[in-house]
Amino acid sequence: MQTREQDEKFLQIAIDLSLNKMNEGHGGPFGAIIVCDEEIIAEGWNQVTSTNDPTAHAEMVAIRKACNKVKHFELKDCVIYTSCEPCPMCLGGIYWARFKRVVYANTREDAKNIGFDDGHIYDEIASPHSKRKIEFCHCPSTNALNVFNEWTKKNDKIDY
Amino acid sequence: MQTREQDEKFLQIAIDLSLNKMNEGHGGPFGAIIVCDEEIIAEGWNQVTSTNDPTAHAEMVAIRKACNKVKHFELKDCVIYTSCEPCPMCLGGIYWARFKRVVYANTREDAKNIGFDDGHIYDEIASPHSKRKIEFCHCPSTNALNVFNEWTKKNDKIDY
Repeated sequence: MQTREQDEKFLQIAIDLSLNKMNEGHGGPFGAIIVCDEEIIAEGWNQVTSTNDPTAHAEMVAIRKACNKVKHFELKDCVIYTSCEPCPMCLGGIYWARFKRVVYANTREDAKNIGFDDGHIYDEIASPHSKRKIEFCHCPSTNALNVFNEWTKKNDKIDY
Repeated sequence: MQTREQDEKFLQIAIDLSLNKMNEGHGGPFGAIIVCDEEIIAEGWNQVTSTNDPTAHAEMVAIRKACNKVKHFELKDCVIYTSCEPCPMCLGGIYWARFKRVVYANTREDAKNIGFDDGHIYDEIASPHSKRKIEFCHCPSTNALNVFNEWTKKNDKIDY
């Protein structure tokens, strides 16, 4: 269990990353680190514009690096320290990786105040499909449902 | 503007990917393609377990490939066809890439019925931090806010 002092120490490392990598031109002002047993196992920073990858947020980059390091798709005993509250995409990634804790500094409102869309995406997720700004079209398919049935019958599958 | 027949044709390609790549052992039963001007510019399929990457959902893989191909972090004129309604992580990725449309076959309820967590994550996103299953800890930091202020003053930044 981390103390408040340990949390602040690790969070400051994520904040330092956010500043240094922004200044180096990698992308937006966001940094994240992943800690397991008091050890930093991965660092990430925003690289959206420098790598032309809209998914390259600090948290996502750090998650991919950490999983590559531990050779597993879950990070159950890990804490992610991020300079800003995760956007919905990163929040989803954090749940899929099954983190123990998330520690963050700036909020989604702070992000909105400097022009980032996080709050808008949170609103859209809560909206019914018919009211979303991107058109969502549901085309039910028996073939697609059959693939799901095949999954349930697959003997050698790895659950995640 | 795609017709219903065109939508069904493209969606079937995503469904075929979901079946074939599942059978080949890449991961869960999910496939996606990205279409621009009637042309398929990227394909993706779930690779979570085969690459130890919890972010390697079909839609995310396709988005990263498409952006790499067009050399831009936005896909404004594109449609994503996916064999299943996007999870919150992929939905976030879709908004950040600023797609025109999303066409999907199976629903989040169908995914839940075969053991996938999407619905749970949608619920968690809507929950206040204090009620979430992963602990979210807000540690406000003047240093972190200062980095955001630096961003607003940065002259050579690329907005996204």
